[in-house]
Order: sequence, then structure tokens, then C-alpha cells
Amino acid sequence: RTLRIGLLPGDGIGREVIPAGRKVLEALPKSLGLDFSFVHLDAGFDEFKKNGVALPEKTVETLKKECDGALFGAVSSPSTPTKGYSSPIVGLRKRLDLYANVRPVKSVVPTAAFPDPIDLVIVRENTEDLYVKEEKTYDGPDGKVAEAIKRISERASSRIATMAGEIATRRQRVRDTTGGDAAKKALVTITHKSNVLSQTDGLFRTTARAALEQARFKDAGVKIEEQIVDSMVYKLFRQPSAYDVIVAPNLYGDILSDGAAALVGSLGLVPSANVGDGFAMGEPCHGSAPDIEGQNIANPIATLRSVALMLEFLGEEAAAAKIYQAVDANLAEGKLLSPDMGGKAKTTEVTEDILRRL
Amino acid sequence: RTLRIGLLPGDGIGREVIPAGRKVLEALPKSLGLDFSFVHLDAGFDEFKKNGVALPEKTVETLKKECDGALFGAVSSPSTPTKGYSSPIVGLRKRLDLYANVRPVKSVVPTAAFPDPIDLVIVRENTEDLYVKEEKTYDGPDGKVAEAIKRISERASSRIATMAGEIATRRQRVRDTTGGDAAKKALVTITHKSNVLSQTDGLFRTTARAALEQARFKDAGVKIEEQIVDSMVYKLFRQPSAYDVIVAPNLYGDILSDGAAALVGSLGLVPSANVGDGFAMGEPCHGSAPDIEGQNIANPIATLRSVALMLEFLGEEAAAAKIYQAVDANLAEGKLLSPDMGGKAKTTEVTEDILRRL
Ligand SMILES: CC(C)[C@H](C(=O)O)[C@@H](O)C(=O)O
Ligand SMILES: CC(C)[C@H](C(=O)O)[C@@H](O)C(=O)O
Repeated sequence: RTLRIGLLPGDGIGREVIPAGRKVLEALPKSLGLDFSFVHLDAGFDEFKKNGVALPEKTVETLKKECDGALFGAVSSPSTPTKGYSSPIVGLRKRLDLYANVRPVKSVVPTAAFPDPIDLVIVRENTEDLYVKEEKTYDGPDGKVAEAIKRISERASSRIATMAGEIATRRQRVRDTTGGDAAKKALVTITHKSNVLSQTDGLFRTTARAALEQARFKDAGVKIEEQIVDSMVYKLFRQPSAYDVIVAPNLYGDILSDGAAALVGSLGLVPSANVGDGFAMGEPCHGSAPDIEGQNIANPIATLRSVALMLEFLGEEAAAAKIYQAVDANLAEGKLLSPDMGGKAKTTEVTEDILRRL
Repeated sequence: RTLRIGLLPGDGIGREVIPAGRKVLEALPKSLGLDFSFVHLDAGFDEFKKNGVALPEKTVETLKKECDGALFGAVSSPSTPTKGYSSPIVGLRKRLDLYANVRPVKSVVPTAAFPDPIDLVIVRENTEDLYVKEEKTYDGPDGKVAEAIKRISERASSRIATMAGEIATRRQRVRDTTGGDAAKKALVTITHKSNVLSQTDGLFRTTARAALEQARFKDAGVKIEEQIVDSMVYKLFRQPSAYDVIVAPNLYGDILSDGAAALVGSLGLVPSANVGDGFAMGEPCHGSAPDIEGQNIANPIATLRSVALMLEFLGEEAAAAKIYQAVDANLAEGKLLSPDMGGKAKTTEVTEDILRRL
């Protein structure tokens, strides 16, 4: 099988970690029967500054017509309000209907602050909520007033909760077959703020619950719980090992996943996949980090894990497992770590070490 | 000076902690020249179940006409969607125009997870954002769709940022005079998500910045910084001691303050004040905790600190300082702690211990 992968490095350290992602795909054992071809695609703030658009139409079209998957690096946000600029990653998620943003947070070597093993996944709705970006500004009696629409639909809430149920089911199957953490049970925690937003978050809550109450999830032993979003953040930090799969509307999912990254010590470890029907785009959770750009010190692990996650959603679980194991082995040994992890290794050195372990 | 204080215990453990708050006011040394009178007021989910309204008009009127300040306990949210129920605390904030929600998070005895001293304040806008609760539901092509309005105004953003600047100025003055943490500098961090919400959060960002650039704050040495909300949560957990005052729109402030509570080990320690012009209402950040209700084991400290905070905003800084010191002494000694802190003391025992130290 040959997979065609779009490469969208974007800005800043995106240009240093996406090449690492490409390398790991090229280094996969031939015995897996996978081949890759790549196409480089433009997107980002630099692209905007050059050509006036952050997400060129050609990029979207090429992904739609030619590609099986993609790797997205990171984009810089303008430091002052900039007319006409619109985040390309938000645009891509919508244009390609990548309705799920899947963000696994896993500790290989627990940190001093969080000694318990952490192994959870945040499943974030990826197309609506405040990210519909329907805003307007008008003059009020005491100055300007701006409004944005938060939109929640039954359809999007149902499919994201179904995805969460499927992920919980698959994780339980993996634990059952590999003898993983026996204390861990399949659990989906629905996060919302329906005590204030009774209609929007209320719809998310009841729809997600209905989707998760399907017989197939019940049969697989998937339990359902709810947390109000503020309380969720608190509990995430107090008892991170208690959670398995967390499903949330777009914005809460965004905030929760950055928060959860702190649990494992670095944003540089946390991957994500933007998943639609038959397409997956890997994306490290970190940003473009202009402060460390060009120094070859960015942690490539978030990207390498994002590559694995992309492969998982393209049905290549064996190839994904190879990459996860190689990354885990690098972390468990702890000799070649990037500066965010307290080490001194360069981006390329960490990458080489992981490639060796494939 | 006699202050008339409305007592709104609400539901659950609110009924156990608000009496502790009343006791600490009554136990303040007479030398402070303060007298208190109290009026008990109804609000909450139990009230809703009894009389069909969660926030009786009489409660609002009494607070407006008779009271200088108030203490609010906590309210339960219905566990299933309930027609006609609306959160009384959200209603009170709006009806009394308590536009600032001030939430100091301070470690007296650092936890193992966060060994650095934490001393920050979250200043949360308290009247608008998604809390305007303007929602509607309609039938879309694929099921129900619900929308909510997020409203951000120049006026509210400006006054909350000004409040944040004033708090940063006051905190620096206290550090300068008492020789507190010398490494700590007056800093206000503006939190927003203007990379997605360019108009609403963009307005918050630019308005807050303009308010904080006033000469009086510059002269007081108040620095200004910005953080995107997801990154803010991450940084809050990675370097909590780096922050001083964090100003945020309503919903981000809600999420951030519960998150910050995890930094100091328990929500049971974190107070808040809902502040308007000439009125302040203390409110512990925790909820009604139905799981521990009626057992006399709730931590009263969040409420006792909320009493102090209320007094601070009513101009009674000396009385406030007395209470803070007594609470800190109880925590520093660490002998009489409630179960959330790993101790075995009852609510009433912790309260008595703190009263003794006044
Ligand atoms: C860059 C930004 C628009 C984006 C988001 O909010 O989704 C980022 O934070 C992420 O999580 O991928
Ligand atoms: C109970 C709820 C409506 C409230 C809020 O969201 O403001 C609470 O979480 C708080 O922080 O006081």
C-alpha cells in the first residue's frame, strides 16, 4: 500500500519537526508493506505575509484530491490584530471536515509532580462551537460591543461521542490483549458547562450521552461519566490517572488538552490527529515556538507520535505501534532528551535515536 | 462602623461553611471598631424545588436595599436538564452588577507537586461573555442545533482590566512595605483566545491592554503580558510562581480559577469575592459537594478567606489581614486540617482553631 502524505510545516519549529515526521515514515521496516510519497504544501503566517492568504486554495485541493493523510506543523499567530488573517489549521479542519481532534496524553516516565501513570485521551469536537468564527462588532451605549456565536449541533455532538466510545472500546481491547493497566476501565467522561449553557452545552451533554448509551458500547463495558468543565480541569490535575477518554466540545477540548500536557511534563510530548472519514492529519499540540526557532532544539516527539496517530486512523495499527514503542524506549532510557525534558539533545539527535529503535 | 451582611448559604455544604463565615465576623477583635448585623436570605436549588424560583426577588431587593456585603455558599445544579431553573449566583452577579470576580490562589504550605510558592490572583469578568445566557435552539438539516451568544464589551473589559491593574498595584505596595517575596514583580497577564475570536476576544485584548497602559499603572511598575487561554492553563501548571495577576473574560476565568485551585492542593482553600461599586459578596470557589453534605467535614477555609476578601473590598483591610493571618497560621501548623487536606478535623474544629488565632 502506498500512502500519499501532505506535509504542511507551517511556521517556526514546524519546519524542524515535520522533517522528523517524514523521516520516521521513511524509516519504517519494509516488512510492513507500506510505501509513502510526499507533497509539500504551503500554509501559515509567513505564507500570509508573502501571498496574502494563510491557507492557499491549492493546499486544500491537493489534500482533498491526492492525499491519504497529512502532517501539520504549527502556525504563528500575529502578535497584533491583523486584518484578513485567519488561522489555517482551523480552516483545514473545517474544509476537510476533520471532525475529531484526538489527543492522547500518556506518561512513560512519570514526573515528580504527577507520580501516577497517566494514560488518557482527549477527544475534541473539531468543527463547531466558537470555532465557527461568526462574529460581529457594533457600537453600544458605552463603546464597542462584539459578539460571537457558539454553535453546537446534534449531528456533530453525536459523531464525536461515537468516536469517543469507539476509542474507549479499542483501548479496552488493547488492555485486555496486552495485559495493560488492569485497574483501568473503559470510561468516557462528557465535559460540558450545561449549568450555565443549558441549550448549547445541554444539547452536547444529552446527545453525547445518548450516543454513548448505544448497545455496542454498553456491551464493551464502556462506562459514562460527566464533569462540568471547570471541575474537569481541577480533577484532571488532582487525579489524572482516574480518566480514560474525555469527550468535549471544541473550545473546552482545546483548553483541556494543553492543560493535560502539563501533566506529562512537556507540550513537546503531546500529539494529536485531526480525523475525518477516511482522512487523518497528524499535528503536534505545541505551537510554532518562535523563541526557540531555528536552533534545532525542538522536541520532535509530539510530531513522531502524531505520525503514529495518523497511521492508526488510516488503519495501519502495526506501523503505529512500532513508532510508539520506539518513542517510549527513547523516553524510558532517558539519555537523549531535548531541552524541554531537561536534556541537551538536538531535535535531529532525538529523531535519530528513535529511528534506530524502529 | 456597622456592616449589614446578607447570608446566602444555598445548598449542600454551603449550609455548613456559611455559619463558619458568620462566626469569624463575630469573633473579630472589638478594637477594630466593627460591628455586624446579619440577614438570612434564600437562594439555591432546594429553594427552586420548594418555591419554583432559585433566586427570589426578595433576596435581590434585600441585598440592594439593606446590605453592605454578603456571603454566598454554593448551589447545586440539577443533575438532569430542568426547565425554569437558572443559576442564582449568575443571576446575583448580574442583578447587583458585581462586575469583578476576584480569586486569589496562595500556597501557605507548598504541595509536593508544586514546591514553589504560589501567590496569584485571577480577576475574572463577571457579567458577560457566554454568561449572558442568550441561547436558542432550532431544527437543522441533520437534527437540532443550538446557539449561544458570547458577548464582550469595551466597557466591561476596560473596568475589569482597571480592577486588575489596581489589584496588582496594591499587591506590590503590600510586598514593598511588608518585605514579601522580592523576586515577585507587579504583572498583569491578559488571557484571551484572539487567534480564533478576533473580534470578541480581540476587543477584550486591546481594551484590557489600553486600560492597563494608563499612566498610574505604569508609574506603579505594573508590567503587562498576554497569554492565549490554552497556553495559559499549560503555563499555570508549569510555572505557577511566575504569575501575579491574571485577568480574563468570564468563562476562561471560571476554568482558570478551578485549575489554579489544584495548584494549592484543594478547592477547599480558594476564596472569591464578587465585587461591584460599593458592594462585595464573598463566595468559596468550591461547589455544594452533595457527596460530603451534612457530615461536618467540609473545609471552611475557602469561606473564611472569602469573608476576608469581602472585608478588603469594603475597605476593611486591617480586619481582613487578621483573618488571613489566622488561616495561614492554622495551615502552617498543619495540625487541625479537614479531610480534603489529608487531615481528620471537622468543619467546626478547623473553624474554632482559626477563631482562637484571631
Ligand atoms: C492555533 C489555534 C487556532 C489552535 C486551536 O485553538 O485549535 C491550537 O491551539 C490547537 O490546539 O491546535
Ligand atoms: C455554579 C456556576 C454557575 C459558577 C460559574 O460558572 O460561575 C461556578 O462555577 C463559579 O465559579 O462560581
